[in-house]
Amino acid sequence: MIFNKRITIGTACFFYMLFFSLTIFAQQPADYVNPFIGTSNYGATFPGPIAPRGMASVSPFNVAGSQNLPLEKDSRWLSNPYVNENKFLTGFSQVNLSGVGCPELGVILLMPTTGTVETNHLKYGSTYRNEVARAGYYSTNIDKYNVKAEFTASKRVGVSRLTFPKGQSNILLNLGLGLTNEEGAMVKIVSSTEIEGIRSVGSFCYNSPEAAYPIYFVAKFSKPADQFGVWKKPSKYSGVEAQWMNYNGKTRMMDNTTKMVVGDSIGTYFTYKFEKTETVEVKIGVSYVSIENARENLEKETGNKSFDAVYDETYKQWNDVLSKISVEGGSKEDKIIFYTALYHTLIHPNTLNDFNGEYPEIKTGKIGKTTGTRYTVFSLWDTYRNLHQLMSLTYPEQQSNMVKSMLEMYDENGWLPKWELNSTETFTMVGDPASIVIADTYLKGIRDFDVQKAYRAMLKGADQIEDNPLRPGLQDYIEKGFLTTKDRGPVSTTQEYNASDYSISLLAKALGKKEDYLRFKNRSLSYRKLFDKNLKLLRPRTSDEKWYEPFDPASGANFEENVGFIEGNAWQYAFMVPHDMKGLIKLMGGDKPFANQLQKVFDIKQFDMANEPDIAYPFLFNYIKDDEWKSQELVKKLVKEYFQNKPDGLPGNDDTGTMSAWLVYAMMGIYPISPGDPVYTITTPMFDKITIQLDSKYYKNKSIVIEREVNNDGKIKKIQLNGKTHDSFFISHDALVNGTTLKVIQN
Amino acid sequence: MIFNKRITIGTACFFYMLFFSLTIFAQQPADYVNPFIGTSNYGATFPGPIAPRGMASVSPFNVAGSQNLPLEKDSRWLSNPYVNENKFLTGFSQVNLSGVGCPELGVILLMPTTGTVETNHLKYGSTYRNEVARAGYYSTNIDKYNVKAEFTASKRVGVSRLTFPKGQSNILLNLGLGLTNEEGAMVKIVSSTEIEGIRSVGSFCYNSPEAAYPIYFVAKFSKPADQFGVWKKPSKYSGVEAQWMNYNGKTRMMDNTTKMVVGDSIGTYFTYKFEKTETVEVKIGVSYVSIENARENLEKETGNKSFDAVYDETYKQWNDVLSKISVEGGSKEDKIIFYTALYHTLIHPNTLNDFNGEYPEIKTGKIGKTTGTRYTVFSLWDTYRNLHQLMSLTYPEQQSNMVKSMLEMYDENGWLPKWELNSTETFTMVGDPASIVIADTYLKGIRDFDVQKAYRAMLKGADQIEDNPLRPGLQDYIEKGFLTTKDRGPVSTTQEYNASDYSISLLAKALGKKEDYLRFKNRSLSYRKLFDKNLKLLRPRTSDEKWYEPFDPASGANFEENVGFIEGNAWQYAFMVPHDMKGLIKLMGGDKPFANQLQKVFDIKQFDMANEPDIAYPFLFNYIKDDEWKSQELVKKLVKEYFQNKPDGLPGNDDTGTMSAWLVYAMMGIYPISPGDPVYTITTPMFDKITIQLDSKYYKNKSIVIEREVNNDGKIKKIQLNGKTHDSFFISHDALVNGTTLKVIQN
Repeated sequence: MIFNKRITIGTACFFYMLFFSLTIFAQQPADYVNPFIGTSNYGATFPGPIAPRGMASVSPFNVAGSQNLPLEKDSRWLSNPYVNENKFLTGFSQVNLSGVGCPELGVILLMPTTGTVETNHLKYGSTYRNEVARAGYYSTNIDKYNVKAEFTASKRVGVSRLTFPKGQSNILLNLGLGLTNEEGAMVKIVSSTEIEGIRSVGSFCYNSPEAAYPIYFVAKFSKPADQFGVWKKPSKYSGVEAQWMNYNGKTRMMDNTTKMVVGDSIGTYFTYKFEKTETVEVKIGVSYVSIENARENLEKETGNKSFDAVYDETYKQWNDVLSKISVEGGSKEDKIIFYTALYHTLIHPNTLNDFNGEYPEIKTGKIGKTTGTRYTVFSLWDTYRNLHQLMSLTYPEQQSNMVKSMLEMYDENGWLPKWELNSTETFTMVGDPASIVIADTYLKGIRDFDVQKAYRAMLKGADQIEDNPLRPGLQDYIEKGFLTTKDRGPVSTTQEYNASDYSISLLAKALGKKEDYLRFKNRSLSYRKLFDKNLKLLRPRTSDEKWYEPFDPASGANFEENVGFIEGNAWQYAFMVPHDMKGLIKLMGGDKPFANQLQKVFDIKQFDMANEPDIAYPFLFNYIKDDEWKSQELVKKLVKEYFQNKPDGLPGNDDTGTMSAWLVYAMMGIYPISPGDPVYTITTPMFDKITIQLDSKYYKNKSIVIEREVNNDGKIKKIQLNGKTHDSFFISHDALVNGTTLKVIQN
Repeated sequence: MIFNKRITIGTACFFYMLFFSLTIFAQQPADYVNPFIGTSNYGATFPGPIAPRGMASVSPFNVAGSQNLPLEKDSRWLSNPYVNENKFLTGFSQVNLSGVGCPELGVILLMPTTGTVETNHLKYGSTYRNEVARAGYYSTNIDKYNVKAEFTASKRVGVSRLTFPKGQSNILLNLGLGLTNEEGAMVKIVSSTEIEGIRSVGSFCYNSPEAAYPIYFVAKFSKPADQFGVWKKPSKYSGVEAQWMNYNGKTRMMDNTTKMVVGDSIGTYFTYKFEKTETVEVKIGVSYVSIENARENLEKETGNKSFDAVYDETYKQWNDVLSKISVEGGSKEDKIIFYTALYHTLIHPNTLNDFNGEYPEIKTGKIGKTTGTRYTVFSLWDTYRNLHQLMSLTYPEQQSNMVKSMLEMYDENGWLPKWELNSTETFTMVGDPASIVIADTYLKGIRDFDVQKAYRAMLKGADQIEDNPLRPGLQDYIEKGFLTTKDRGPVSTTQEYNASDYSISLLAKALGKKEDYLRFKNRSLSYRKLFDKNLKLLRPRTSDEKWYEPFDPASGANFEENVGFIEGNAWQYAFMVPHDMKGLIKLMGGDKPFANQLQKVFDIKQFDMANEPDIAYPFLFNYIKDDEWKSQELVKKLVKEYFQNKPDGLPGNDDTGTMSAWLVYAMMGIYPISPGDPVYTITTPMFDKITIQLDSKYYKNKSIVIEREVNNDGKIKKIQLNGKTHDSFFISHDALVNGTTLKVIQN
């Protein structure tokens, strides 16, 4: 398969080369993945290899150095190790986050060079060409050194294959450079084929520097180095001492050392003297527990396997997991954006535990041990809206383990997670989204977790007024029904708490806790107190409960800080009460005014496809009888406009797969319109036939099929479930998974 | 025993308190040790505890902070962690060097504080009072916190006993602050009673930063901390990033973390909430091999022993080793300076190997294993002159192990050591002194080492012209007989090579290698080519063999850089040809001109008691018949003037015990006048009777006695050996150790 594309932002033209001949003969789902999608326009994805939900990943790192301005990591807030239009490569980072809004990880930078060892990345960096990216594989040619660099990864091991020309070649492992400002590393060259070390990471969003934590690694080289060493760049001294230090501020080359070296800015070099073109493979196992575990991860996952063998396994894993959804009809481009989106939903949450099950617990400092998978990277303010719903439908065992991981965090930390990252709670964003995810999962029939514990955890977050890190402002929320302008983003936060309370009420009902059910259902409607009838919008109120003045509903667009809302404005939050659309319609004065106001969001260009608060808006016309065609058209239009097979083919940050999950659902013609509610709303599928394999452990049917009849781009005329008319644009999860075929008929 | 002293430099008056009651009843040799001697006047000793030749030691650290100006470590070249007249204490370093001329070690700073944890040493530092220092023990009261801090040490473990008042108490382990600019540490809090970590050290004399190396440690606390944590002070960022980092440049408090933390400037805090006065004991085991070995060192040496038990053992070790020489007669002050000097000769070279025998090899990066003792800290340019001679006489097994350690270094590094420090070769100073030490040892009958290997090693250093790190300028030396002004210190270095060559010739003779004997004996006399008959001094020559002009013989005093000489001037080097005094006398024109020129050195105040080149001058009148009384008077006068029972009671830097060894010999009335030659010259003993126990493994006699008859401060009239007249002011080592009594009779 050959991708041809032209990038408008940059000038580069990328040629995607054939790699495995099998791809010529059979287009497998994994072959449709284009990891470059989202690597521009702040999509914050990376093009390098990762196994499904892998701990390790390899990304080309091209965000350091003035050559990369304006998209340079030290000159601006930049949360990704790679930007497609940048040109200056300074290595390949071995742990990376995909689609996050803050810098983190992007460390342990491997870089092949030739000639004399140069340790300053601004000097050894290079342009590159012939980038190839596929599921589990990335390669490029490094101009300055004429080195071909290829990468793959197993779950916890990044594997590099470096093809060097004749002469002196070097493999640098830079432990100083990284995406964030966090510093500190230890390294020890164990032998001429092995390095072990640690790198400090942390301070996500420049928060909680005290929660910085180590990543441990072991690197094994297929060929023994002819020479090796460690470099260390110390602080620069001034005063009289500086006169005595002819090495003041200079990088030290500690040749042939096998001693442990520690410091803020250190690295290793392995040097080869090649008589001819030669290839070196480097395996880098990682762990968040210990060097020993990193070594075991490396041995158990990749042992003596060749680069090709590792890639082959990872490719198969991707193909297996992506094949849970098969699509027929639709263009090749449609398939590319669809499978790439599905691929992006399968990166985070990712695996935290080592091969032996060990993982760092959150807060306790202890090492836990899981028999399943301990997941991490829960960007729940994003993912509660659709990603976990997609997991429950298609990968319920993963979703079950995610819930179990969240409950382990509750055991360890005393609280459900909010934005958990490698067993640190970053408390980024607002709301109490874990409750929604867990309720949603349970109500979809995935119940192999301790729901009573989960319920206790939810109540703690919802009811404990003092020292509650999940729900700041809870006292006002309970007493007044809303947060006030003395808190950050009081309208948004009230809406988030409402959504969580609604989910808790649903679970309470399912568990037979009638009193709680009523209490939380009642609480979930309190946003109504923020509804300004004149504006037909939600509006902040001050602590003496007056409307906040002056109030500009448009203020807060494009992530602008504003009073009232988090990452959005009154238009982008006005309809974010998915659990009470009927109530909102009533508040707005009925169907017509509601539909008008909703349409206005789009007409005045306040709809933001690139962020979560209004992400469900396009589907909301389904609540107005005979306006459903507007949702069908809008969704189709937005997919076409914002999701494309090119680096800037995401509307913005992928938000750990949330944007991608939106696309997967949108293209399947169903959307989990009300998080917590096991229900989907229906629009037009973008393939003729979509088959979702169901996991027999959780669902009795083997699969469900979504079909569309006649692709005339018209409005949906009829919906059939199992051949019978389904007289609604909504369908319950139960009805869907217990059915066989959902058919959308346009003519 | 109570020491009372008044310090002229500072204003403090120190009161030495009784510690163990046994000292009241019996004055043991160890009781005479006053570790404060040498802690002022740049003596560079430290007052804290160390076991004989210990790896670990504890020193109060009072050289940081402007409060300590002018003797502040960052404002000047300062090679010691403690200065007696300083006032501001910022901790207790757990590894230290004694009597060296360059900053090194002085790291792993323990500091007890109270109240809120403060991690900035400039803020938590304090004045202190009631210092007590004894062999193996130091204590002081820390004013700011009302904490009594006591310290002792076993060979590889520093032990602290901290007595806190009621309230919050903290024990800080500062891994950022240190004596040198070397940075970098790793730490992990294992539990509420244990910490492990590493600290990077190195760059002795601000040289060879690439040879920096780690020291590993494990700290165990007798009481579990109520709270603990790690602090980390990161770099300060500028630019846009700084705006997002509200923690920019600020120290982070990582409370309760048990994760590994790395960085340039980190530390740990253990906090206690005491209801009443309480004592915590902290044991810190160290190793240059691994954390595991540090832990094993701690367990095997101190296990469950109390502070008092460890002190008791170390005290006994000191007493045993110091008791090898017993003295009778003489004042208490004489005994104090004598035993303190002997104590100072038993600090370096010190133990490098761990309890299990492992040690880091030099250069190879491998871990070696010894069944004896692997010694380190060989400041051979200093110690070849008298310290090793003292070891051969009194502690021959130690000296044998030192020679074996030097031969191991040859095996590992390809060269004998010059200035070896913790298995790094610092190549500080000039000359090839190991050959002298080894030949001297062998010729004194200590022969349980591989002398053939030693001889090969010596020849390599003496003959290999290319790539010879020991003897730069060797080609000129061999071809011309001297180094020229294109090399550093050409006269000094020629003299050093002559001295080494003479020792090689002596060993060659002993081994029956006649040709080498003659060749090296001939080489050893080449300094004569630098003798300026007009000046009666040695004088540098240029590369075209002309006298260097303009030439000021006085230039170079007080360590001033100059052309011709290393740390000295023409006067201080003129007589440094101990192996050819007869030749020098002839060059100078006979006995009288020689004696006049020698006397002139003292008269014009060019004699420097504080450095090695002229250290033997006072004894040189013994070469002139009937002038021997001048040596007797001079030595007595110099001892009285420069060696006293007070902090500034050393003439200058102790040079890892070389100054102290000078004093021990001078007070015993013998001095190893010609390094390599197994011979002593005789002056007046400063005690009535001195008994040296001889090691039966090496010597057939049990002891030798040196006596003086009638202490009338007169000239020596007669010398008797075993009751018979000994008609010389020189005595061979053999005659001395095979005799029983050397008696010096003054009347």
